[in-house]
Amino acid sequence: MDGQHHVVIVGGGFAGLHAAKRLGRAGCRVTLLDKRNFQLFQPLLYQVATGAIPPGDIAIPHRVVLRRQRNVTCLTSTVYELDPATRSLRHEHGELRYDTLIVATGVKHHYFGRDSWRQFAPGLKTVEHAIEIRRKLFQAFERAEATADPAERARLMSFVIVGAGPTGVELAGAIGELAHKTMVKDFRNIDPRQARILLVEGAPHVLPVYDARLRAAAQRHLEELGVTVRTGTRVEELGPDFVRMRCGPDVETVEAATILWAAGVRASYFGEILAERTGVLLDRGGRVKVEPDCSLPGYPDIFVIGDLARLTDARGREVPGLAPAAIQQGRYVADVIRARLRGRATVRPFRYRDLGSMAVIGMNRAVGDLRVVKVSGISAWLIWAFVHVMSLIDAEQRVRVFLQWSWKYFTRKEGDRLITGAPPQTRALRLALKRDAAAS
Amino acid sequence: MDGQHHVVIVGGGFAGLHAAKRLGRAGCRVTLLDKRNFQLFQPLLYQVATGAIPPGDIAIPHRVVLRRQRNVTCLTSTVYELDPATRSLRHEHGELRYDTLIVATGVKHHYFGRDSWRQFAPGLKTVEHAIEIRRKLFQAFERAEATADPAERARLMSFVIVGAGPTGVELAGAIGELAHKTMVKDFRNIDPRQARILLVEGAPHVLPVYDARLRAAAQRHLEELGVTVRTGTRVEELGPDFVRMRCGPDVETVEAATILWAAGVRASYFGEILAERTGVLLDRGGRVKVEPDCSLPGYPDIFVIGDLARLTDARGREVPGLAPAAIQQGRYVADVIRARLRGRATVRPFRYRDLGSMAVIGMNRAVGDLRVVKVSGISAWLIWAFVHVMSLIDAEQRVRVFLQWSWKYFTRKEGDRLITGAPPQTRALRLALKRDAAAS
Repeated sequence: MDGQHHVVIVGGGFAGLHAAKRLGRAGCRVTLLDKRNFQLFQPLLYQVATGAIPPGDIAIPHRVVLRRQRNVTCLTSTVYELDPATRSLRHEHGELRYDTLIVATGVKHHYFGRDSWRQFAPGLKTVEHAIEIRRKLFQAFERAEATADPAERARLMSFVIVGAGPTGVELAGAIGELAHKTMVKDFRNIDPRQARILLVEGAPHVLPVYDARLRAAAQRHLEELGVTVRTGTRVEELGPDFVRMRCGPDVETVEAATILWAAGVRASYFGEILAERTGVLLDRGGRVKVEPDCSLPGYPDIFVIGDLARLTDARGREVPGLAPAAIQQGRYVADVIRARLRGRATVRPFRYRDLGSMAVIGMNRAVGDLRVVKVSGISAWLIWAFVHVMSLIDAEQRVRVFLQWSWKYFTRKEGDRLITGAPPQTRALRLALKRDAAAS
Repeated sequence: MDGQHHVVIVGGGFAGLHAAKRLGRAGCRVTLLDKRNFQLFQPLLYQVATGAIPPGDIAIPHRVVLRRQRNVTCLTSTVYELDPATRSLRHEHGELRYDTLIVATGVKHHYFGRDSWRQFAPGLKTVEHAIEIRRKLFQAFERAEATADPAERARLMSFVIVGAGPTGVELAGAIGELAHKTMVKDFRNIDPRQARILLVEGAPHVLPVYDARLRAAAQRHLEELGVTVRTGTRVEELGPDFVRMRCGPDVETVEAATILWAAGVRASYFGEILAERTGVLLDRGGRVKVEPDCSLPGYPDIFVIGDLARLTDARGREVPGLAPAAIQQGRYVADVIRARLRGRATVRPFRYRDLGSMAVIGMNRAVGDLRVVKVSGISAWLIWAFVHVMSLIDAEQRVRVFLQWSWKYFTRKEGDRLITGAPPQTRALRLALKRDAAAS
């Protein structure tokens, strides 16, 4: 357009957005493309799913974040084709040429090849997922209150969470908190404390990658909130209201109206486009193997960062799929591009700075491995809350989430428990039931 | 169950919820049934539709509102049948017997018999409508930014609002505010101030039922925010991206990607069930004609209140379909029932206390007819904001909306501009486009 170097970023999650921010005033044009018009703070998505905070508190439009980066244009559009020879991309609303391309499209849910499970057990990657889980969760309690059939009530008050990584543990803890604390006084026909909350994990422990002491603390915290933990147990089959699982030789079928999926992720589809067009290798999870500077082998003008990248860093450790790693990669790649624009072609390879990891269980318990110290209980929760509020990208969001949490903490009230999605309409329901009655 | 008098309330809007609150500790059992698990503060719904506040700020679960009314049970279920002879109701999850029935199911949108228009021009009655309008609105700006075609851009940046009652005026004002103030710095390829915002009204004035001076003030405020007002103009036809309208002999077709409906309402379907089962008369809008004490003629154990009721009050004036009237009727009917339970059968007929009406235009302009005084401009806006914040049913909501507004007022930032609803997936889009290319 104006002869300036044009950087195109596909994907506006942690990695892409931080790259775009760092490229503000870098003497290049930047275009950020994303299917969605907002960045989502995924680490708090489980709080939306369990009604603690509304979706708007953890999502912010890209163009609001990048309002001051006048050289950055945000486009809401799905990119579906790449031609590295002509350095061009095709997207829903047109075509774009790039000088440098950054791909940061992340990961999505994966059902180990059992895609039919998706309809019965929603995962937790998008705002829509969180709202769907919220609807399922609160609708189950509503229906249990409305039904007179004890078997139906037991089924409605059974919740199975598949996968006990951080997301699964946090979801199970938040549901336990809801049933045992927040909603205790809200019903007349049911006692929410009788809810059965099952956390199923194939590995021998919850939070498999954490330290043994923290795993034990996490399991204890979960059990205090009424969560039943089943480790070493694999899901063999699931349907609209049952889960069949195997633990060694034992097979058990549990009836549950609400089944949530927190078990696996797979690289987004853009990795396959890259492989098709550049011949780059993907790992078993579909992630793109990149060079130490995050570029594609043989394509120094294409970078892959964030959860989509498979990278062994300068210290020989594999970079994990976590938000801090994505942020660090986004900033690193922006610095590589700035250095190139200034004519300096060599930079040190990417080096991951491990800040530790945490998981929160219910309202004021957490476990954390902060490298120098391992914490659990309320101190871990306070650190967790502080770190998360401070990591929100926008000052307004920080204030809002802090206020929501403070309010919730002192009043034990939930923030946003709406069941949305259109309910049955009176007329349609009546006509359908009349038709059924006439037919039988 | 326990021999206590059982009051069943169908519908948990302003009327039903205030009746339920007032029946707490009244020595009777109360069951509140609603399709939804929450009450919606409809007067602020247009602020959700235009991204100013998130849906959770104006919606609150019935069971949270009624937590302290231990004699009130809330059920989320759609009621579809009534038998006044056996005093029983059938709903999605079972059957219920009542001693006294209160029907408060309100109104829904009405397209003057042109139901096909619904898909092109969403109305604004539910949270889902508001989120759909929000999606259409922000998606239009996003697509205008992404496209290179000037005709397409013009179409995307044209907005038509049909109907200039309070909802239409408030929607148009809020869209003007967005385009001319809030979003001015957010785009690189388009200037949001070039948006064409058309407010179409069949009557000769905006806000037809207001005083002439206020109507003129409203029109002036709208024009200051870039809204083009077309009064005396009727919509003849509309489709996915056009509106054909007639003003006297002139016919004009406007291309617009976003068409919003604020023109008419009709009583909810439960009115027809009542007519079928009790022979009560409905007016042209489907509203139920009730006795001066809000009961059904010939059925002193059935009350109809809120927007569904057609009632001429003790002073001979027709009670309007407004939130304050619904609240007053809910409380009144609760008092009638309490009096009956104490053996006092005669009460004074319902008397509507008119508190005046207001409409807000943009961020700090409003018009109000407060009976003793007519106000416009910023003083009207301040009164409007105060009245609305104080009418929210829950203290937490009041605090939250107040904080949101204050923040928005001082920063001019929007609160919740998410475009939700799943976007096209890369893989599916790519395959579809390849198929199309192969076919042509």
